[in-house]
Amino acid sequence: MRNVYIFLLISVTGVAALAQPTVSVTSPNRALVITVQSTPSGEVLYQVRYKGKSVIEPSKLGFVLSKPQVSLTRFNITTIDSSRTDTTWQPVWGEVGQIRDHHHELALTLQDRSSPAITLRVRFRVFDDGLGFRYEFPQQPALTHFVVAGELTQFRLAADHRTFWMPGDYDSNEYLYNTTKLSEVDAVAAADREKDTALKSVIGPNAVQTPLLFTTTDGLYVSLYEAALRNYPVMHLQLDKPTLTLTAQLTPDAVGNKAYLQTPAQTPWRTLIISDKATDLPASKLILNLNEPSVIDNPSWIKPQKFVGMWWEMHIGKATWEKAGGKHGANTQNVKQYIDFAAKYGFDGVLVEGWNVGWEDWFGNWKEDVFDFVTPYPDYNLDSLTAYAQQKGVRLIMHHETSGSVTNYERRMDAAFSFMNKNGINTVKTGYVGRIIPRGEHHDGQWMVNHYERVARKAAEYKIMIDSHESAHPTGLHRTYPNWLASEAARGSEFNNAPTLGITPEHTTILPFTRLLGGPMDFTPGLFRFALNQFDSTRTQRVRTTLAKQLALYITLYSPLQMAADLPENYEKHLDALQFIRDVPVDWDDTKVIAAEPGDYILMARKEKGLPNWYVGAITDENGRDLALPLDFLDPGRTYDAVLYRDAPNADWQTNPAAYVIEKKAVTNKTKLTLRLAKGGGCAIQFVRR
Amino acid sequence: MRNVYIFLLISVTGVAALAQPTVSVTSPNRALVITVQSTPSGEVLYQVRYKGKSVIEPSKLGFVLSKPQVSLTRFNITTIDSSRTDTTWQPVWGEVGQIRDHHHELALTLQDRSSPAITLRVRFRVFDDGLGFRYEFPQQPALTHFVVAGELTQFRLAADHRTFWMPGDYDSNEYLYNTTKLSEVDAVAAADREKDTALKSVIGPNAVQTPLLFTTTDGLYVSLYEAALRNYPVMHLQLDKPTLTLTAQLTPDAVGNKAYLQTPAQTPWRTLIISDKATDLPASKLILNLNEPSVIDNPSWIKPQKFVGMWWEMHIGKATWEKAGGKHGANTQNVKQYIDFAAKYGFDGVLVEGWNVGWEDWFGNWKEDVFDFVTPYPDYNLDSLTAYAQQKGVRLIMHHETSGSVTNYERRMDAAFSFMNKNGINTVKTGYVGRIIPRGEHHDGQWMVNHYERVARKAAEYKIMIDSHESAHPTGLHRTYPNWLASEAARGSEFNNAPTLGITPEHTTILPFTRLLGGPMDFTPGLFRFALNQFDSTRTQRVRTTLAKQLALYITLYSPLQMAADLPENYEKHLDALQFIRDVPVDWDDTKVIAAEPGDYILMARKEKGLPNWYVGAITDENGRDLALPLDFLDPGRTYDAVLYRDAPNADWQTNPAAYVIEKKAVTNKTKLTLRLAKGGGCAIQFVRR
Repeated sequence: MRNVYIFLLISVTGVAALAQPTVSVTSPNRALVITVQSTPSGEVLYQVRYKGKSVIEPSKLGFVLSKPQVSLTRFNITTIDSSRTDTTWQPVWGEVGQIRDHHHELALTLQDRSSPAITLRVRFRVFDDGLGFRYEFPQQPALTHFVVAGELTQFRLAADHRTFWMPGDYDSNEYLYNTTKLSEVDAVAAADREKDTALKSVIGPNAVQTPLLFTTTDGLYVSLYEAALRNYPVMHLQLDKPTLTLTAQLTPDAVGNKAYLQTPAQTPWRTLIISDKATDLPASKLILNLNEPSVIDNPSWIKPQKFVGMWWEMHIGKATWEKAGGKHGANTQNVKQYIDFAAKYGFDGVLVEGWNVGWEDWFGNWKEDVFDFVTPYPDYNLDSLTAYAQQKGVRLIMHHETSGSVTNYERRMDAAFSFMNKNGINTVKTGYVGRIIPRGEHHDGQWMVNHYERVARKAAEYKIMIDSHESAHPTGLHRTYPNWLASEAARGSEFNNAPTLGITPEHTTILPFTRLLGGPMDFTPGLFRFALNQFDSTRTQRVRTTLAKQLALYITLYSPLQMAADLPENYEKHLDALQFIRDVPVDWDDTKVIAAEPGDYILMARKEKGLPNWYVGAITDENGRDLALPLDFLDPGRTYDAVLYRDAPNADWQTNPAAYVIEKKAVTNKTKLTLRLAKGGGCAIQFVRR
Repeated sequence: MRNVYIFLLISVTGVAALAQPTVSVTSPNRALVITVQSTPSGEVLYQVRYKGKSVIEPSKLGFVLSKPQVSLTRFNITTIDSSRTDTTWQPVWGEVGQIRDHHHELALTLQDRSSPAITLRVRFRVFDDGLGFRYEFPQQPALTHFVVAGELTQFRLAADHRTFWMPGDYDSNEYLYNTTKLSEVDAVAAADREKDTALKSVIGPNAVQTPLLFTTTDGLYVSLYEAALRNYPVMHLQLDKPTLTLTAQLTPDAVGNKAYLQTPAQTPWRTLIISDKATDLPASKLILNLNEPSVIDNPSWIKPQKFVGMWWEMHIGKATWEKAGGKHGANTQNVKQYIDFAAKYGFDGVLVEGWNVGWEDWFGNWKEDVFDFVTPYPDYNLDSLTAYAQQKGVRLIMHHETSGSVTNYERRMDAAFSFMNKNGINTVKTGYVGRIIPRGEHHDGQWMVNHYERVARKAAEYKIMIDSHESAHPTGLHRTYPNWLASEAARGSEFNNAPTLGITPEHTTILPFTRLLGGPMDFTPGLFRFALNQFDSTRTQRVRTTLAKQLALYITLYSPLQMAADLPENYEKHLDALQFIRDVPVDWDDTKVIAAEPGDYILMARKEKGLPNWYVGAITDENGRDLALPLDFLDPGRTYDAVLYRDAPNADWQTNPAAYVIEKKAVTNKTKLTLRLAKGGGCAIQFVRR
């Protein structure tokens, strides 16, 4: 043991004995205690307690490697290091203007007891609102290149918690959340209920995705996730019901391996955000703090933005992506109308899907050469539209649907990004609909994880911002690549059009406790027409919110890239409500989660970047409710003009979704509002300081 | 049956009955007869006879598809079409100045009897020296995208022929040939004997590669191969010994499928070159005739060439590819010496391997990011060398070793080719040493076959010529892409340095009947030092030829890209012999195979492109022999100055390889020479018309 110096914050038992040390580290506020112990046979177990309550019972750490062929499960602990960090940093954009990174760190060096005595390190970082730990493989004679066959990390839960879960799936995260006891997980049955997901690779009945959310009978809220997923596959979890133990299930590659690594190497952080206040979870910056700082030296070209676009009208049957069939949406005249609309109402961008040749035969055939990303359909005059948009002060947003053929995209990416530069387009929505090529790879595998990062890195070289759809779940990499503005990576608003389960009213009240912990989501809210039979009278599916809730989503689902997803003609009918979408910022100085319960409701307030104005969003599930809104976040002694976009008294997502009231009033920080939310309803408020 | 018009050359029996037609088509000279018959159950069988001798007994045709899931084995023949072609075309470069394509064609449309009644076509082209047939899947409502799970094409041999074979292997074709009866094939044992092949994916004990060569007891020479391998995997063959039947075994992809196709689609041609004269096989242009014409409109930038290079000295331990270790070959000073040597002796190019960073960790770890193809080692001043070479009238030849990481190469290819353009380098040697990435793909799979073609196509855009190593066996695509000058794709001269089996004396007498039928080989002959212990006294392996045979290989192993592989200092000791390599052309107006027996010897004469001069090469296996050389190919009535580079009377590959005699004499087309070849020897002759 080279280093037995232990910070005061760490209590060590048995270190002198060396064989079976027990080491503990607390969070700065001492609420959270992580204890690591070594058993006589060499197993290393960690456990997590929060304010005296057990969160993770003693759980195993380890690996199986296929090259060299060895299991790393029994160790000698050779060194124990600790440190503390308390720094503050500024994100390029985000929910808050600055972020405090305050944590205690414990790093144990473990030497595997079997030949060739591989050394690894497990590093814990403990914050007041949770912890992360990762494995590190230092450079060493015994290990250079190695192949991970399995990660054995376990999470043994203390009780059979209420759990918000999605089926474990190597290719899709576009599920609804299920809420059951942990022991009642049935992932295959849940996946079978989801008829509208194009591609599913369900792992098995007891496999679930992260982020996973638990609420405990003793009042805790616990999110299990990962941070800084780089050069490693997505971690899914296999549940052993008798022991309530979740074990890492890494996404395999085409030949069944999990990760190809070269020392020095490290895994993503395995994270637990823990609090006895539900509001702490959406406010947590733990995931961001566990990511590396930005690699972009001068990010002045990165701009949060709002956009409209040629997209929803294809979903609801007004137009088609493909040119064949006579309903091609992305023709010059149609797109001009979107540009006009964007310019008139102050949107930054116009997304155009279906602009490029290939949509006649793009999906479902595992076809490699589909799109070339540089050839517009003949009825889409890109040159004239670029000029027209520029003249109107609007930018087109590029669309790169890869159809899952990533080899094709990678070999054309430079040309595609150069083409964007040439045309003055600096934001691209990427898409990965369909089975991945290289065949046998998955959306969640190491190869694809590296691809997504490669896109972010190369896009940065071209000063291009990214909005990735059908990519793996985000894990805070927008700190490192702030040009990666948003991703989909969950069930987004487009599923309102799905015939089977759609978007339930509760879905958006769960996202802030799960998917959004990893990063901004391009959910595409702003639907103002709720019946979706506008162009196809046979459609019975509908949007399951009120209009006011659609507005509130711009606050409750943070993204620096927000779409106003509906058709211009639907907005023209509600220009007073559109005003909120026009006004709402996409970059903030501060965020306060005022009230929240996952699956039920959330109420948040955010301060506009660089201005004294605040915006509030409140949403509820299928139940109407009243939420108290104290305005103590406003500057004392100042008057604010408040504009409330609220559900009308008779509003109801099922019977009367478009009934809203716009109310203006003057308020101060002493004012106390009560927000009355309809069933499936919401409320959005603007506060402008006088 | 839409079309029952049958050419005179085709005899049809039972067409009127429709159910079981038997159709025959002959070669233009009527020596070859292909008969296709349909059985009552719908099997379609073809058989091949040559001058009354059975070559292929009735053999099955068909497929198994995995999408749609259907076996295509029982058909109704719906149409029979026929045609004849007799044209002549000029290759951009080659062994002859013009090529006659004279064949009869028979195309049968087959409708599968099972649902959904898929239609395919089988097309036979019959030449005087053999035949090709392929399957075509026309566009049809029943079939658009489809996935081939297996091709069922069979080749049922008429007898247990003497067979020249290599083990079937999805990743390597760098084996020695085995010569046994067909029934004695033991591919696993043969592969086990090959200790020097870095990567083997042996299919099984009864699987062999194509090209496969048979010599029959009734005097026939038969080559079984394929032509125009595009968008389809390499065909290996599974042998059923009791029935002497070979069945197509296509190379699988990462998930076990064979080919992803979209109608209209076609397979490569399955070819049989057949003659009762051994000399007809190396002379055959059947494979080229079955490929598509050149896609390069103005090929004036494509230049056959000879080169020297920084390569062999790494193999024999004088230098290393990697910089670490202090023996880095590709440093500026060393390469200058190669440029000086090339300029002094008239070579066009200087290949430089190990010029770019990455060789310290390039092999064996299935690592994706190895080389970037644009970053020289710091001791390699590319700018100064480019200028120096240009001033000396020489060009550098680029080296792109991918280490099998093809995804990495594809994403960097544009930058790499632009870098070559910028540096005035117009030829690249590519390499694919190691397991392929995308992981699970093979060198011989459809994905890689498409990659090799993609490289040729993209290189053509940059006016770059290709020399591909470790690529799949060539099948005549140099007609379509004449910038794809040569490939390795067989055991080449570098194996002289391999510790185990090396290059046997017979190996080069088999290549003209097998590998070379598909296209030029970068064999890299010209070794003048036979013991390979020059820089490492422990090495016992040696070159198993005489020096004269090394010269003769420039004639007998055709390539438009020929290396003089040995070190300058070894050439300086034999400048009189080097003169032949300096003089020998790499592009020809005509070629005559004068005498040959596979595995024993070959004697060829070639006429220099655009000049009246001829060159002759003769090589033998481990046995010495005399070969008669009538000079009737020379212009009558003219005198030629002949320079014979022949084995000295006491030459012997084992005991005295460097003993040669250079003899000059005047000859006419009446002169008859007898070439005395030593054991493992050869003879090279230049005839310059006065």
